[in-house]
Amino acid sequence: MPRPVDVVILAAGKGTRMKSALPKVLHRLAGRALLGHVLAVARGLAARQTVVVTGHGAEAVEAALPALAEGLAWQAVRQAPQLGTGHAVQQAMPLLADDGVTLVLSGDVPLTQPQTLAALLAAQASGGPDALALLTVELADPHGYGRVVRDAAGRVQAIVEEKDADDTQRRIPEVYSGILAAPTARLRGWLQRLDNRNAQGEYYLTDVVRHAVNDGVLVLTHRVADAVEVAGVNSPAQLAALERAYQRRTAEALLAHGVRLADPARIDVRGELVCGQDVEIDVNCVFEGRVVLGDGVRVGAHCVIANATVEAGAVLHPFTHIEGDAAGVTVGAHARVGPFARLRPGTWLGPEVHIGNFVEVKNSTLGAGAKANHLAYLGDATVGERVNYGAGSITANYDGARKHRTVIEADVHVGSNCVLVAPVTLGAGGTVGAGSTVTKDTPAGALTVARAKAVTVPGWRRPTKPSA
Amino acid sequence: MPRPVDVVILAAGKGTRMKSALPKVLHRLAGRALLGHVLAVARGLAARQTVVVTGHGAEAVEAALPALAEGLAWQAVRQAPQLGTGHAVQQAMPLLADDGVTLVLSGDVPLTQPQTLAALLAAQASGGPDALALLTVELADPHGYGRVVRDAAGRVQAIVEEKDADDTQRRIPEVYSGILAAPTARLRGWLQRLDNRNAQGEYYLTDVVRHAVNDGVLVLTHRVADAVEVAGVNSPAQLAALERAYQRRTAEALLAHGVRLADPARIDVRGELVCGQDVEIDVNCVFEGRVVLGDGVRVGAHCVIANATVEAGAVLHPFTHIEGDAAGVTVGAHARVGPFARLRPGTWLGPEVHIGNFVEVKNSTLGAGAKANHLAYLGDATVGERVNYGAGSITANYDGARKHRTVIEADVHVGSNCVLVAPVTLGAGGTVGAGSTVTKDTPAGALTVARAKAVTVPGWRRPTKPSA
Amino acid sequence: MPRPVDVVILAAGKGTRMKSALPKVLHRLAGRALLGHVLAVARGLAARQTVVVTGHGAEAVEAALPALAEGLAWQAVRQAPQLGTGHAVQQAMPLLADDGVTLVLSGDVPLTQPQTLAALLAAQASGGPDALALLTVELADPHGYGRVVRDAAGRVQAIVEEKDADDTQRRIPEVYSGILAAPTARLRGWLQRLDNRNAQGEYYLTDVVRHAVNDGVLVLTHRVADAVEVAGVNSPAQLAALERAYQRRTAEALLAHGVRLADPARIDVRGELVCGQDVEIDVNCVFEGRVVLGDGVRVGAHCVIANATVEAGAVLHPFTHIEGDAAGVTVGAHARVGPFARLRPGTWLGPEVHIGNFVEVKNSTLGAGAKANHLAYLGDATVGERVNYGAGSITANYDGARKHRTVIEADVHVGSNCVLVAPVTLGAGGTVGAGSTVTKDTPAGALTVARAKAVTVPGWRRPTKPSA
Repeated sequence: MPRPVDVVILAAGKGTRMKSALPKVLHRLAGRALLGHVLAVARGLAARQTVVVTGHGAEAVEAALPALAEGLAWQAVRQAPQLGTGHAVQQAMPLLADDGVTLVLSGDVPLTQPQTLAALLAAQASGGPDALALLTVELADPHGYGRVVRDAAGRVQAIVEEKDADDTQRRIPEVYSGILAAPTARLRGWLQRLDNRNAQGEYYLTDVVRHAVNDGVLVLTHRVADAVEVAGVNSPAQLAALERAYQRRTAEALLAHGVRLADPARIDVRGELVCGQDVEIDVNCVFEGRVVLGDGVRVGAHCVIANATVEAGAVLHPFTHIEGDAAGVTVGAHARVGPFARLRPGTWLGPEVHIGNFVEVKNSTLGAGAKANHLAYLGDATVGERVNYGAGSITANYDGARKHRTVIEADVHVGSNCVLVAPVTLGAGGTVGAGSTVTKDTPAGALTVARAKAVTVPGWRRPTKPSA
Repeated sequence: MPRPVDVVILAAGKGTRMKSALPKVLHRLAGRALLGHVLAVARGLAARQTVVVTGHGAEAVEAALPALAEGLAWQAVRQAPQLGTGHAVQQAMPLLADDGVTLVLSGDVPLTQPQTLAALLAAQASGGPDALALLTVELADPHGYGRVVRDAAGRVQAIVEEKDADDTQRRIPEVYSGILAAPTARLRGWLQRLDNRNAQGEYYLTDVVRHAVNDGVLVLTHRVADAVEVAGVNSPAQLAALERAYQRRTAEALLAHGVRLADPARIDVRGELVCGQDVEIDVNCVFEGRVVLGDGVRVGAHCVIANATVEAGAVLHPFTHIEGDAAGVTVGAHARVGPFARLRPGTWLGPEVHIGNFVEVKNSTLGAGAKANHLAYLGDATVGERVNYGAGSITANYDGARKHRTVIEADVHVGSNCVLVAPVTLGAGGTVGAGSTVTKDTPAGALTVARAKAVTVPGWRRPTKPSA
Repeated sequence: MPRPVDVVILAAGKGTRMKSALPKVLHRLAGRALLGHVLAVARGLAARQTVVVTGHGAEAVEAALPALAEGLAWQAVRQAPQLGTGHAVQQAMPLLADDGVTLVLSGDVPLTQPQTLAALLAAQASGGPDALALLTVELADPHGYGRVVRDAAGRVQAIVEEKDADDTQRRIPEVYSGILAAPTARLRGWLQRLDNRNAQGEYYLTDVVRHAVNDGVLVLTHRVADAVEVAGVNSPAQLAALERAYQRRTAEALLAHGVRLADPARIDVRGELVCGQDVEIDVNCVFEGRVVLGDGVRVGAHCVIANATVEAGAVLHPFTHIEGDAAGVTVGAHARVGPFARLRPGTWLGPEVHIGNFVEVKNSTLGAGAKANHLAYLGDATVGERVNYGAGSITANYDGARKHRTVIEADVHVGSNCVLVAPVTLGAGGTVGAGSTVTKDTPAGALTVARAKAVTVPGWRRPTKPSA
C-alpha cells in the first residue's frame, strides 16, 4: 500500500519582476490564481495534508486560501524571515507526519499535470522506502538552472547551480524543476543538516540531494517531456506565455473531443467548458467559469460567455455577452441569442426563445417561444410563453429604492417603446399598444393603450441653420 | 486535343475521429463543405462528368450535392459495403466513358489548387495515352503514408504502405497523395485486377500502380511543393489546421492585391471578398458569402460582414454586423455605419447615409444623406433623402400577424423615442415631435406631436431605501 | 563636442507594389505614417535640420509634413526627375551646412531605433572627422541586397549590388541597409563624383563608399542585431509584417512594465499607451492616440479605445468603445463602463459613474456616482452627482439646426423611455416619471410626469395570421 502523500507548496516568493501589488502566487492564469492551479493538483493527487508556506504578501495569500484550497485539508505556515527554499520547507515540517511522503511543489509553477506528479511519486516508491525523487527536464538552453549531475552509471550525484558549475556541467541539458518527493522522515533529517554557507547565504532545498547521496540513498528522477509543466512565473511575460500554453492545451483537448474551433489560437477558456457533440465555436470567444454547451450549439464570433448552460441546438450570434453568477444563466434548446445581446445573472430562457440585438435581460425568466428581438430591457420579469416584447420596451423595475417584478403572462404582445412600471402584471393574451407607459395591471385578452392623440401644430416652423 | 476529363470523388469515408453526426465531407472549411471545395476544383477543370462516391452518411451527402455541385454534370453512386478505396473507384467506373481521363480526388482533401491538377493531367498526357500519373508530396515526416518507390532510373515502381515498407523504403520522403489521373479504359482494367489479399482485407486503389507497372505503362508523378494541397481532414484538429492554412492563403492574396490588413493572422474570409483599391481592414473581421468592398472602404475592428456591397469611400466602424441574404445588403458610397450597428437582409443604404450605434435596419431603404444615429430600429421602411431619424425611435412594423411598411418621405425629422405604427406615411419635410406614437399619416411640412402635457405632482415623495 | 546632425530622409519612392493611390511613405504603421516614424527618430536624435526629399506623390507628402514633422526644423526638396538614391541625396545637399554630419534615412524604413542611429553616429565619430559609417545587417538570405565587401583586415572596400556580385560576394551575409552617416562636407564631394554608368542608368548612393575608399577614408559599420530595424516597406505584405513586429515590440514593453496582457499577440497599440500598476488588458483590444490607464484598471475583451484617460480602479467591460478627440475622454476612478458602451468626444465621467450596455455618451459630463445603465443616449448634457438616468431615455439635443444642452442636477431620477428636449434643466432631486417627454424645466425635489392615461379598448381584436 502506498504511503500517504503530504504536499508542501512554496508560496512565499516576492515576485519583484511582476511589478505588482498582488503577491505573485495570486496572479491569475486562465482566470484562476497560480496557487489555485497548484492546489488543484494537490486535490488531484488526493493529498492527505497540504501545507502552504507563505511569506511575501502572506495576509493576502492566506485570505485567498480558503476559497482556493476548498476540499483540501490544508494549513498555512509563514516563513519569516525568508532564508531560502530549504528554510521554507523547514517551516512546514512540524506539520507533517513521518509516515508519509512529502511532495514539494512551487506555488508559481501552475501547469504541472497530476499524472506527472503521480509518475514522480511512483519513481520515488520504486527506489525503496528511503529514495528521493526529483522532477527534471531537459532544456535546449539550460542556462541559469541547477544541473542534474550524474555519475558514470547514471546515478544522480548532485544538483549544481549555474554559478558553481564547471564547463562540463554547464553543458548538461537536464535541470532540476524545483519539485521533489521524499519520505518525510528522511527529508526532515536532510533539512536539519542544511547550511547557508554559499554565495547568497541561503538554505537551499537542492542541498538535500547532497545529503541523500552522502547517506547512500538512491536519488531517482522523472523527466517531463514538456518544459511547460515545470515552467515558473516570474514576470508578466512568463505569465502570458504560460497562459498561451494553457489555452493551446485547452484548445487541443476541445478539438480532440470533437468541438469545431474556427481558430484554436483564438479561444480563451478560463474555467470549465463542457461541450456536447457537434459544437461549433467561432473566432475570439472567451469562456469563463463553468459553461456547458449542448449538442449542436453554435457560438458566433466575438462572444464572451461566463457561467452559462446553453442547451442543444441553441445559437449564440456574434457579440453575445452572457455573464452568469454561480447559479448560472440558462439558454434553452434551439433558442437564438444576439447579436449584441447581454444576458445577466438570473436569466433563464426557455426553449426557442429569441433575444435579439441590443437587448438586455437580467434576473428574468422567459417561457418557451417568447421573443424580445430589438433594443429592449427585461429586468426582474417573469415572461410567459410566446410573449412578443416590442422593440424599445423597458421594464421599469427600480423605483429608486427597491426592485419590483414585472409579470407578463403567456401570449401577451407588448408594443414598441412601452414602459412597464413594476410591480405590474399584464394579463394573458393581452396587448399593450405602442408607446404606452403601464403602471397598473392590464386585463387578459384586451388591448390597453396609454397614448396621447397626435395633433398637427399649425404654423410651426422647423428651426433652420443660420445662413453663412 | 486533350482528352476529356472525368472526375471521381471519394466521399464515402466515415470520419470517426471527427466525433460528429455530420458526414466528414460535409464539414465546412471557410464556410463551405469540404466536398464543395473539391467540387469547385472539378468546376475549375471543366470536368466533363463528375461522379461522387458516397457511403457513410450517403443520404445527407446526396442531399447536399445539388447545391454543392451546381454547374457540374454530376452523379452520385453509393459504395455499400465499403471495401476499400479501389472498390470505391470501381463503383464509379460504369458511369465513365472509355475515351476520357479519370481524375480521382478525395472528398476530404479540400485545398488542392486547380493548377496543380492541371499539372498532374499534363504529366499524365506527357507520358502517352496509357500513362498513369500520381500526385505526390515530400514530407519531413512521411510516417504512416504510402511511399513512392522508384528504380535506379527514377521510374516509379510501386507505392508501398507503411506497414509493408522495409527500412530503406521507410526513409523515402516522397509519399502518394491519394490523387491520381489515368486513362479511363486502362484504369478500368487495372481496377478489375485488384484483390483484397492484404492485412486489412480491402481493395486498395494504390495497387493500380503495381498493375500499371506490370503492364509496362509509364507511371509519372507531379510533386506539390506545399503539403497543404494534399492534406486530408480526419479530425477537428486537422480541419482547424487547414482552415488556418486556407485563411493564410486568402490573406496573402488580399495583401498581394493591395488590401491593407492590420493583422493577416486575424481575418476570416468564408466565401468571396472582392476589394477595390486602398481598402483597409482592421483586426478580427469575419467575411461570409460574397462581400464587395469598393475603393477606399475602411472596415473597423471586430466587424462581421456577410453578403454585402460596400461602395467606395464608405466606412464601417468597429463592431458592425451586416448579414445580407442572397440579394445582399448595400452600403452606399461614403456612408458611415456603426459602431455597434446591425444591417439585416433587405437593407439598402444610399450614399452618405449614417447609421450609428445600437441601430438595427431590416428590409429598408434609406435615401442619400439619411441618418439614424442612435438606438433605433428601422424595419420594413422606405426612408427618403436627408431624413433624420431620432434616437430611440422605432418602426412598429409587426401587428402580431403581418409586417407593414413605414414610408418616411424626404427631409422628414423624426424626434427621439417615437413609434411609427405601420402602415403609415410621414409626409415630406414634416417633423414628428419627440416621444410621439404615430398611427396615422402625417402631413408634409408640418409638425405633428402626440404628447401628454407634463404635470408636477404635488406632495409626491420618492420611495426611500429602508434605513439599516 | 560632437558635430551637429542633419538628417536627409528619402521619401520620393513610388511604391508600385503597394497598389495604392497613397504615396508609399504616407502608408500608416501603428496608426502613423511611415514617414512619421522616421521623422520621430530624427526628433529623438535632436537633429539640427531635417530635409525630406519628395518625388512621387510629392504634393500629398508635402501636405502631410507640417503635422508629421512637428517640432523639427525641416524642409522639403523635390527630386524631379528621379535618377537614383544618390541623385536624391544630391537634391538635399544645398540645404545642409558643411560643419555637420549628414544622416541619410529612408522614409519607408520605419522601425529603426534612435539608439541604433546614435550608435551609427558614434561609429562615424570614432573613425575621425572624415569617416563614413554604414548601417548594416546580416541576413540568412541576403539575396537581392547590396553586400558589404571587406578586405582581409576587415575594412570595408565596397558595396556590391546583387547583379554585380560574383559567387564569393553573393555568399556574404552582411548587407547594407540604405542608412549611412557621413561628414557633410566630404559627402558633398563624393556625391559630386557619382555617375550613372550602370545597368539602371541611375546615380547610386552606395557609390559614395567607393569614392570614400578611393580617398583613403575609413568606412565603418554598425551592425543591427534585429533585421526589423532596417526593413523597408514595399508591399502591403511587408507593411503587415512590420506592423506585427511593431506590435510585438510594444506588447513586450508593456509586459516588462508590469501590464498583464491576456494575449501579447492580440493587442494593437497605435499611439501611446501609458499604464499604471496592475493594469489588466484582455484579448483583442485596440488602443489609438494617447490612452492613459491608471493603477488597477481592467480592460475587458474586444475594447476599442482612442484618446482617453481611465483613472485608477475603473473597469471597462468587454465591447467598450471610446473615441476621444484631442481633448480626450475621461473615465473617473472606479467607474464602470460597458459592455457595449460608447463614449464619444467631450465625455467626462466622474468617479464611480456607471455607464451600462447600449449607452452612448457624447459631449457630456457626469458627476460622481451618476448612472446610465441601459439603452440610453446622453448628448450635450451636464449630469449631476448621483443622477439615475433611466433605461431607454434620450436627450433630444438637436432641433434640426442647433445642438442644445440638457442640465440634470444632482440626485435627479429620470425614469425609463423619457425624452429630455433641450434646452432644459431638471431641478436637483427631482424625478421624471417613466415615458415622459420633458420640454420645460422641472422643479427641484418634485415628481414631473407627462403621460397619457392607460385605457382598455373594448372589443378590440388582435390581428390574426391568415389560416393556411
